[in-house]
Amino acid sequence: MTTPPYPVIRLRPNAEARAIRHGAPWVFDNEIVTDRRTRALAPGTIAVLEDSDRAPLALVAVNPASRIMARVLDRDVTARIDQAWLTARLARAFGMRTRLYDTPCYRLIHAEADGLPGVVIDRFDDIAVIQPNAAWAETLLPDLVSALRAVTGVATVLKNATGRARALEGLDDQSAVLAGAAPEAPVPVAMNGAVYMADLTGGQKTGLFYDQRPNHAFAARLANGARVLDVFSHVGGFSLAALAAGAEHALAVDGSEPALSLAAEGAARMGAADRFATRRGDAFDVLTALAEEGATFDLVICDPPAFAPSKKVLEAGLRAYERIARLAAPLVAPGGYLGLCSCSHAADLTKFRAACTRGIGRVGRGGALIHTGFAGPDHPLHPALAESGYLKALFYRL
Amino acid sequence: MTTPPYPVIRLRPNAEARAIRHGAPWVFDNEIVTDRRTRALAPGTIAVLEDSDRAPLALVAVNPASRIMARVLDRDVTARIDQAWLTARLARAFGMRTRLYDTPCYRLIHAEADGLPGVVIDRFDDIAVIQPNAAWAETLLPDLVSALRAVTGVATVLKNATGRARALEGLDDQSAVLAGAAPEAPVPVAMNGAVYMADLTGGQKTGLFYDQRPNHAFAARLANGARVLDVFSHVGGFSLAALAAGAEHALAVDGSEPALSLAAEGAARMGAADRFATRRGDAFDVLTALAEEGATFDLVICDPPAFAPSKKVLEAGLRAYERIARLAAPLVAPGGYLGLCSCSHAADLTKFRAACTRGIGRVGRGGALIHTGFAGPDHPLHPALAESGYLKALFYRL
Repeated sequence: MTTPPYPVIRLRPNAEARAIRHGAPWVFDNEIVTDRRTRALAPGTIAVLEDSDRAPLALVAVNPASRIMARVLDRDVTARIDQAWLTARLARAFGMRTRLYDTPCYRLIHAEADGLPGVVIDRFDDIAVIQPNAAWAETLLPDLVSALRAVTGVATVLKNATGRARALEGLDDQSAVLAGAAPEAPVPVAMNGAVYMADLTGGQKTGLFYDQRPNHAFAARLANGARVLDVFSHVGGFSLAALAAGAEHALAVDGSEPALSLAAEGAARMGAADRFATRRGDAFDVLTALAEEGATFDLVICDPPAFAPSKKVLEAGLRAYERIARLAAPLVAPGGYLGLCSCSHAADLTKFRAACTRGIGRVGRGGALIHTGFAGPDHPLHPALAESGYLKALFYRL
Repeated sequence: MTTPPYPVIRLRPNAEARAIRHGAPWVFDNEIVTDRRTRALAPGTIAVLEDSDRAPLALVAVNPASRIMARVLDRDVTARIDQAWLTARLARAFGMRTRLYDTPCYRLIHAEADGLPGVVIDRFDDIAVIQPNAAWAETLLPDLVSALRAVTGVATVLKNATGRARALEGLDDQSAVLAGAAPEAPVPVAMNGAVYMADLTGGQKTGLFYDQRPNHAFAARLANGARVLDVFSHVGGFSLAALAAGAEHALAVDGSEPALSLAAEGAARMGAADRFATRRGDAFDVLTALAEEGATFDLVICDPPAFAPSKKVLEAGLRAYERIARLAAPLVAPGGYLGLCSCSHAADLTKFRAACTRGIGRVGRGGALIHTGFAGPDHPLHPALAESGYLKALFYRL
C-alpha cells in the first residue's frame, strides 16, 4: 500500500525510540512488534512507525522479509510518499551536485544520506543508472523514474539489479531499460580532465565508479612529468587522470582485459595513447615482476578490491594491504609518491593506515603521509551511519 | 658538538630498538642510558644512537633537558649534519610544495614529517618564518637560515620563538629578524583566489595558518551566490575564500578586533568590501544573538580554537563542540551547509564527528555528512605520529 492512510507498525517496549528521534535511519526486525498483520505487509509498504506508547515517530518503508524491517522516509508523518515527494528529494540532491560539479556526471543519489533509503542513482550525462536496492523503491519505481527524468532531464534510465543488497530484500536480479534506449557502446565520461569509457549495460561488469574522483584529482596534482604506475586500474581511474595532468607515462595493471581495453580507449580519446600502456595479470605477480625488472616510478597507486569486506576476514585483509604496500614501495623512486586505497568496510582508517605504514616500514622506506582522502561529496554519509565511510586513500611521499 | 665524530648514546636494554628501526622518530628519556656523560651533553648535540648491543641505529639530536631526549635525524649513521644535509632536506620539501602549489605560499617544513624534527617553516612569498622548536635547530640556526635562503630564494627570514614547545626544550621566547628586513605592515598572501593579510611580526598574534587551505577550498565550492557566516573567522579564512568564489555576502565573527580588521583589509583588497561585514564578540553569544534576530545563512562555518587540547579536558571539549553545532545548525537555511572544524589533538575524528552529529540532531536538523577534510599536504604527517593529525573539518548538508 503506497497511499494514505498508511498502516501503523510499532516499536517494542524495549526498543530505543530515542535513536529514531535523534536521526537513526533503520529499525531492525527485533525492534518491531511483528504481529500477524505486520508480517503480512507487502514488502515496500509505506507505514507510520509509532513508539510503544503509540506516539508517531516517522513514515517508514517496511519490508517484513528484511533484517532492516523499516527504513525511515520522512519524520513528518503527515507526508505523502508520492511522485512529488520523490521529486523534492531528487531536486535537493540534484541542487547539491550541480553546485559541486561542472559536468553532469556524478552519483546523484547515495541512498540514506540523500533521503532515498536503499536507492543509488549514478548519472552519466544523458543517462542515469538506478539501483533500487530496497523493496519500497522497487514498488515505486515508475514514479521514481518519472521524477528522475523530470528533475534531471536525462533521456535514458537503466536499472541495475546486480547489487547484492537486493537479495537481502527478497528482490530479483533482473536489470532492465526503464526509459529511452540503452547505449550500444561504452559511453565517454569526463572527470578531472580525463575521459573514461563506461560500459553501462554491464556486459563486462566494468561500469564506472565516481567515489574515487577527489583522490584521482589529488594524484593528478602529483603527476606532472611523472612516470605513473596504476595497479588495480580498472578502466584507468588514476592513470588517465595522471595523463590529463601531464604525466610522462602511465602503466595500468589489472586482471580484467575488458577493463584495460576501456582504459586504452579512454587514453586514445584523450590523445594520450602514446603515453599509456597496460599489463594484464595478477597484481601481486606484476608488482613482483616489476621489482625484478628493476622498474621504478615517480607515482605508484594501488586501488585493490575490498580485501577486508567483513570483520571475519579483517586480519587476513590487513595482511593483504600490508603486502601490497611492501611490494609497491620499492617501485617508488626516491622522493616519489605512493597512493594506497582501501574500499573495505571492516578496515577502518586507523587499522588500514597502520597496515600500510607497516608494509612501507618493512622495506625501509619511511616517508611522510601527505594526504588522506575519502569518497567525494556525491557520496554523502548519513550521520548515524558515518562509520559506513568505506573508501580511504592514503598518499605517502617516500 | 655538531661535527663528527659524534658522541654515542645508548638505548636501555628494555627499550624497543625495533620501533626506531621501523621508523619511530623519538626516543624518550626513560629509554636512554642517562649516565653522567649523556646528561652533560649540550642541548642540541648530534649523537649516534646505539641499541643496547652497541649496534648503531640512527643519528639523533640529543636534548638531556627534554622528555623527548633524542630525535632521529638520519638513519644513515655516517651522515654529517651540516649545511649540505639541511639543504637536501629543504630541497626535498621544497620540491613537493612547488609541485603542489602554484603560488610560493605554503608551509615549507612541517617538522618530523619533513625530516627536520621540531622545525616549522612557513613561506609567505619572499618571506619565511621559522620556528626552531627543538634545541638542535637553535644550535644550527645560522646554517639552517643559509640553506633556506639558498633553496627558496627568500629575502627575509623571521624567527618566531613563541611556540610553547620551546619551553619544553629549555629554549627562550625571543623572536628575531634573521635575514633581510621585517615587513613593516601586514603582507598580502594569495590562497584559493582570496587575499589574506598576514601580520608576520606577530604584534597582534594574528599571523596566518595554511592548514585549513583545502577546507577553505571545499567551502568555496559551496559558496557561489550564498550568504555565508564565518564564526571564529580569525583573518577571514573561510569568508574571504567564499567571497572569492562568488558568495553574495559574508559575515565574519571573531573575538579579536585586529583579526577582523585584517579580514576587512583582505576583503577590500579583493574588491569585495561591499559584500563583507564583521561582528566582534564571543562566538557563543553572537550565535545566540543571530538566532534571536532570526538570521539565516546558506553556509555556516565554525572553526573554533582547540576546545579539547588534552585528554584531561576531552569531555568538556566535546560538550563545547556539541554546543557549537547546536547553536550553529538553526542558523543554516533549509538545504544549506554547515562546516564544523576542530583543531584539538585529543578529540579524534570519531569523537568529534559524534559530538557534531549529536548537536545537530538535538535541534532536529538531521542532514548528511558530505565531506571530511584534514590539514593540507604541506602539513604532512610522520607515519609513526599519524594520530597527531589534529585538524578535522566536517561539512554537513542540512
